[in-house]
Amino acid sequence: MRPSVPAPGTFAVSAREPHGGARCGVLETAHGPVPTPAFMPCASRGVLRALDSADLESAGVGIIICNAFHLAIAPGGDLIARRGGLHRFMAWPKPLATDSGGYQVFSLAEPRNITEEGVRIRSPKTGEWLLLTPERSMQIQNDLGADLVMAFDECAPFPCEKEYARASFERTLRWAERSKAAHRREDQVLFGIVQGSVYPDLRAEAAERTVALDFPGYAIGGVSVGESREQMLEAVEVSLEHLPEDKPRYVMGVGTPLDLVDCVMRGVDLFDCVLPTRNARHGLLYTWSGIVRLSNAAHRDDDRPLDETCSCPTCRRYSRAYLHYLFRLQEATAWRLLSLHNLHFYAELMRRIREAIGEGRLGEVRGEVEAVTGT
Amino acid sequence: MRPSVPAPGTFAVSAREPHGGARCGVLETAHGPVPTPAFMPCASRGVLRALDSADLESAGVGIIICNAFHLAIAPGGDLIARRGGLHRFMAWPKPLATDSGGYQVFSLAEPRNITEEGVRIRSPKTGEWLLLTPERSMQIQNDLGADLVMAFDECAPFPCEKEYARASFERTLRWAERSKAAHRREDQVLFGIVQGSVYPDLRAEAAERTVALDFPGYAIGGVSVGESREQMLEAVEVSLEHLPEDKPRYVMGVGTPLDLVDCVMRGVDLFDCVLPTRNARHGLLYTWSGIVRLSNAAHRDDDRPLDETCSCPTCRRYSRAYLHYLFRLQEATAWRLLSLHNLHFYAELMRRIREAIGEGRLGEVRGEVEAVTGT
Repeated sequence: MRPSVPAPGTFAVSAREPHGGARCGVLETAHGPVPTPAFMPCASRGVLRALDSADLESAGVGIIICNAFHLAIAPGGDLIARRGGLHRFMAWPKPLATDSGGYQVFSLAEPRNITEEGVRIRSPKTGEWLLLTPERSMQIQNDLGADLVMAFDECAPFPCEKEYARASFERTLRWAERSKAAHRREDQVLFGIVQGSVYPDLRAEAAERTVALDFPGYAIGGVSVGESREQMLEAVEVSLEHLPEDKPRYVMGVGTPLDLVDCVMRGVDLFDCVLPTRNARHGLLYTWSGIVRLSNAAHRDDDRPLDETCSCPTCRRYSRAYLHYLFRLQEATAWRLLSLHNLHFYAELMRRIREAIGEGRLGEVRGEVEAVTGT
Repeated sequence: MRPSVPAPGTFAVSAREPHGGARCGVLETAHGPVPTPAFMPCASRGVLRALDSADLESAGVGIIICNAFHLAIAPGGDLIARRGGLHRFMAWPKPLATDSGGYQVFSLAEPRNITEEGVRIRSPKTGEWLLLTPERSMQIQNDLGADLVMAFDECAPFPCEKEYARASFERTLRWAERSKAAHRREDQVLFGIVQGSVYPDLRAEAAERTVALDFPGYAIGGVSVGESREQMLEAVEVSLEHLPEDKPRYVMGVGTPLDLVDCVMRGVDLFDCVLPTRNARHGLLYTWSGIVRLSNAAHRDDDRPLDETCSCPTCRRYSRAYLHYLFRLQEATAWRLLSLHNLHFYAELMRRIREAIGEGRLGEVRGEVEAVTGT
């Protein structure tokens, strides 16, 4: 008998920390299970800078996130649909998420271009105007065919007047309803997004009213937009209190290794962030014996790998001396080899977090992460 | 009993075309044998743009060439020597050649900075002046520790007055003598370089007088500097007539796939050229069914690989549609994937050439190469 395959979106918690909210789980997708907590590197345009899909696999990456807005600009959702979807287009056989374009409302749109209907955004590349609505975002995401898709939201700026934060999350709620109504594919798991800026009462209300719409997963958006670390953790914590235990919970745009641990401790299951690859391109490397700043002249003559305990392709083959040299050349090869290492560090971090939760020693991991990466 | 390892520089011809000068051979080096004819991709600065050493292996590359001048500027021959040599520094375990810096005399030096002693060249990067002499070039190349090293020469410009061409090759001969005298390491195979511009009588004389100095291998320099294809082939042909049959013969800076075949037919064993990787970065790809210009809109919706018969990592995983998209993004990932493909094409071309020589059907390969790549 063929074992039954769990439906996409099925989420089972497999272990919990005795104290606090941390849990391990498995989120089922149409492209396989995602062990959580998990970190999703950002391949916004269907590629991670200087890396290819095979590189992501060799760095131990199990799930990535792309961006519906960027891919709609080029090469277009219709073209990717004709290619058989984004997995096939970018030759990525594993789970994949897409963001709705809501973050681009924050980063690219003028407030005056945000209406009840949707958002007019000008492509930073072509200058072309694009009207993004919940229906249009869902259509693009349906075309792309990612396993996890996001409701169309407004990621409000920071700082943000409370009045605006309320109006914005209420519009996001209406957009969430429209997103759900426009969502077509059962193989895609649709996440609702909780906004509410840094206001605890708004966060609580936004979470409750999003949950009332009943999604198979919930994202916490509107963090990592300039607020302090404490404000971020508070916004996450309050939101989590009002999200169901039996659904996956995803904090968008976070963060440093310590941010991840601290959010996991509060009950977060999924993350995405550009930090590991952006830091790599700037020569900041994470290792289990501390942060390496590769431009530092001390590495010029250093024959050791970045991290002697690391099994990534970069550490298995190259010395700090060679990487330092390539980095100073501003060679694309350096961006690639360094990004591979930092992605591997994040993948290994998540693996250690999952293992620690099962063994009730996440606090230990937190101590180690703080010691080797700081905040 | 342990089989005896042939001394570096040993060259054995294993097959010959019944007509013409083409031959297969094996050139022994301290890092293993090189089956010839062979093509050496240019990793001038100890790295091929957007690629790493593991990529070169997966593209089927068996030998590469780096540049003593560029590596002396940064990171410095002394630093690389402290790292255990260039092989170890760049984690390239296979055969490796270095050019002497003579080509930079052509591309970077002012004529008034060329004296009997050597050449004063200004670093294009740092503005720093470097005095390159035969002794200095050999010291750098000894520091780098490549398997094949080049005598210090002047690559004369094109066009070039006959009087200057004579004075230049005669100086190059004196520099060859000094290079030989300064050469120290027995594990490195030192090539003399034949100059003489496009003048057949000068080429003949230069070849004979270089051979009189007795090198284990000979390079033909001063071609691929702006002269016509016919002039290049004539200069190569005349030089070859005066080079010994039992020594490896290397044409520097050549060329297109058809150039390689035509030089092999005249008896050339080694090549280097930036063409496959430079063309790749410009979206010109070689395939066994014709040249692909990737920017062409026809590839936007093409799900086929670049070459259905190709086993390179790029063709095994990605469609033309995705590569077209990455290329239009000007993404470093595109440079890498496309360079991998063109290097694999060149490696496969050389494999086919070697096989054809053994079977007496190089003319057939020439026909196919001309049909799929033109000149």
